[in-house]
Amino acid sequence: METAEITKNLTIAEVYDAKKVLSKIARKTNLIKSTYLSEISSNNIFLKAENLQLTGSFKLRGAYYKISKLSEDEKKKGIIACSAGNHAQGVALAAKENKIKATIFIPSTAPISKVEATRSYGADIRLIDGVYDDAYNEAVKFQKETDGIFIHPFDDIDVITGQGTIALEVLEQLPNIDAILVPIGGGGLISGVAATIKQLKPSCRVYGVQAERACSMFESIRQDKRIELKNVNTFADGTAVKLPGSLTFDYCKKYVDEIITVTDDEIASSVLTLMEKEKIVSEGSGALSCAAVLYNKIDLKDKNVVALISGGNIDVNILSRVINRALLKTGRMCNLTIELLDKPGQLKDVSAIIAELGANVIRVRHNQGGEGDDINDCYLKISMETRDFEHFEAIKKALTDKGYNVLSTVQ
Amino acid sequence: METAEITKNLTIAEVYDAKKVLSKIARKTNLIKSTYLSEISSNNIFLKAENLQLTGSFKLRGAYYKISKLSEDEKKKGIIACSAGNHAQGVALAAKENKIKATIFIPSTAPISKVEATRSYGADIRLIDGVYDDAYNEAVKFQKETDGIFIHPFDDIDVITGQGTIALEVLEQLPNIDAILVPIGGGGLISGVAATIKQLKPSCRVYGVQAERACSMFESIRQDKRIELKNVNTFADGTAVKLPGSLTFDYCKKYVDEIITVTDDEIASSVLTLMEKEKIVSEGSGALSCAAVLYNKIDLKDKNVVALISGGNIDVNILSRVINRALLKTGRMCNLTIELLDKPGQLKDVSAIIAELGANVIRVRHNQGGEGDDINDCYLKISMETRDFEHFEAIKKALTDKGYNVLSTVQ
Repeated sequence: METAEITKNLTIAEVYDAKKVLSKIARKTNLIKSTYLSEISSNNIFLKAENLQLTGSFKLRGAYYKISKLSEDEKKKGIIACSAGNHAQGVALAAKENKIKATIFIPSTAPISKVEATRSYGADIRLIDGVYDDAYNEAVKFQKETDGIFIHPFDDIDVITGQGTIALEVLEQLPNIDAILVPIGGGGLISGVAATIKQLKPSCRVYGVQAERACSMFESIRQDKRIELKNVNTFADGTAVKLPGSLTFDYCKKYVDEIITVTDDEIASSVLTLMEKEKIVSEGSGALSCAAVLYNKIDLKDKNVVALISGGNIDVNILSRVINRALLKTGRMCNLTIELLDKPGQLKDVSAIIAELGANVIRVRHNQGGEGDDINDCYLKISMETRDFEHFEAIKKALTDKGYNVLSTVQ
Repeated sequence: METAEITKNLTIAEVYDAKKVLSKIARKTNLIKSTYLSEISSNNIFLKAENLQLTGSFKLRGAYYKISKLSEDEKKKGIIACSAGNHAQGVALAAKENKIKATIFIPSTAPISKVEATRSYGADIRLIDGVYDDAYNEAVKFQKETDGIFIHPFDDIDVITGQGTIALEVLEQLPNIDAILVPIGGGGLISGVAATIKQLKPSCRVYGVQAERACSMFESIRQDKRIELKNVNTFADGTAVKLPGSLTFDYCKKYVDEIITVTDDEIASSVLTLMEKEKIVSEGSGALSCAAVLYNKIDLKDKNVVALISGGNIDVNILSRVINRALLKTGRMCNLTIELLDKPGQLKDVSAIIAELGANVIRVRHNQGGEGDDINDCYLKISMETRDFEHFEAIKKALTDKGYNVLSTVQ
């Protein structure tokens, strides 16, 4: 990869300075070895758990360091941010700890839990009708009126430097690291991490991971210019950025070895894997690097690989949907519709067949009449917990063999 | 509390020996400060995260230490255990690491995910039709046939000593600890932790926490004799033990200051709190100590308090139900049934009222006809995300003020 000229360069001395500043507040998060992912991928996979960071994501690091670099005059003017998620919480806590006023613009479509979390840090919240862009416009207007300091979520050298402290911790926790996987939204996190790692340990490969449906940095690097996407509708909502930063584009070009994309289903399934196997909660964006490992997108064997789990601020309502979707997509929950003759004993027979094959029935709906052509039609809809698709196929076969008409197996 | 005579005493030397043995395999789990619980309770609350232990619970410690104490002859005979959950996984991994054969009896009603996790450690699984007692009877029969070594889940001095290593870690991580809260099922965990702490730091108060619906140790201590409960049906299924151990009863009597009980709803809400605020997954039993803090069951202020989160092996199907239940019980999700006149525009009006008050609609069902008396009856069932009960009441009032008949608000 050619070496780009970077207008504002990150220096290791500054990253160490950020580490010192952050030691007052940020947690040195755990590096957790994942037995499951290590076996799956034939590597040693370690999770850098920034979802266990204060405010539930890495964003605190950059925001706090940025604020520490403001002059007293700037601090008096107060800070302004626009975000529906992690940046809002990071800025709010950083402002609170520095005893300065923060005004944070949040689109009204943001989940209540995130708004409340931000409010709990004492920030002045402005809920703006509409989506992110509407909130952003209001924030810009407010900035002009008040002359406050706008804290950019990623395209800022101090913010990038703050995120770089994660790399210092990782190098300390795993000196013989071979590769690191980092989620990309606007690119602030990976810029800090990659620039720090490549200067201190050039042999370590740095992979970026993006959601297929929001892969603006991937496209920009591929086309060698910043590309603005029209739609960035992904489950990894924290990385739904239409246009990469200007600085972060240069950093990715210079320091990142490769960018990988993963699908929303792969991300959802990774969120579930992290909950089940590692007992940690990650949001969609947080699980991007896990998805790259789980779905075998990296060509590494027997290496020491760190997957950076960037955050855990997922709305619990969504979490419950993720669980169901992931269970269906991996064959661990299956739905089955069976046509019955309307005569006694059939429910019992079907239940016996399923039980014998070791599936757990979760829900049964028995519909008489209803949508079919024949008034005598009778349908049994069964949701059940299965081991995998193979298990499900065995159950379908057993039912068919006994003469039942298995109508549909909607996922 | 009177000093009971304990037949087999735990010595600190043995706990240190267990620590050394366990250093080969067990993780020294994190002690995580909870900002949220600290504020709620006006204490410094730290979570000892044994849910992040290998196998997802503390059980590995006791099982592994027990096995390490077996003679070569005993090891050759193989080990036997009976469990539907954490003990099974702990024993299975401990056996695998020691390269000895483990036969584990599991009731067929156990969740598939737990069976599969146990199987993944290479144990020989015997799925027994029925509940725990049925599996236990088969295990006893098998033990007699094979002369294998039965590993008791809690009433065993070596198992108790293994669990005591948690106390050594906690004392190292938080030397100025004032109190510790520990879940109780059979009592093995608290016996090891309490005996170790009280010998090394007698000023530290030790609280046990039990589910109200499975409070056999609570009752036994109260009546000063081992009490067998008829039913122990609780969401904290890992602690559903009818009869406390004989050894563990003596330990609790001697070393535990107080036993607290919490309800199933309090436990479910704590599982959600740990996910949302701390980004960690705990099972019902694992969240008992958190429930004691969250629902203000301990009379402590400005103290350094450790809440032991014992495990995280919760079935994800159940997790999704827990989330919904806890959201409903805390007023963060609400269901509303509104009677409509069957004329156009009403759905729009109702939606506008709800949106104006800042609630997020999650699901709408619009039933025409149906179960009511009048063929013209029309009902709108709305599920929505709200801030709290007050918020919900404001929405109900706004709808009533506009002339809508709010029929039921089923929880």
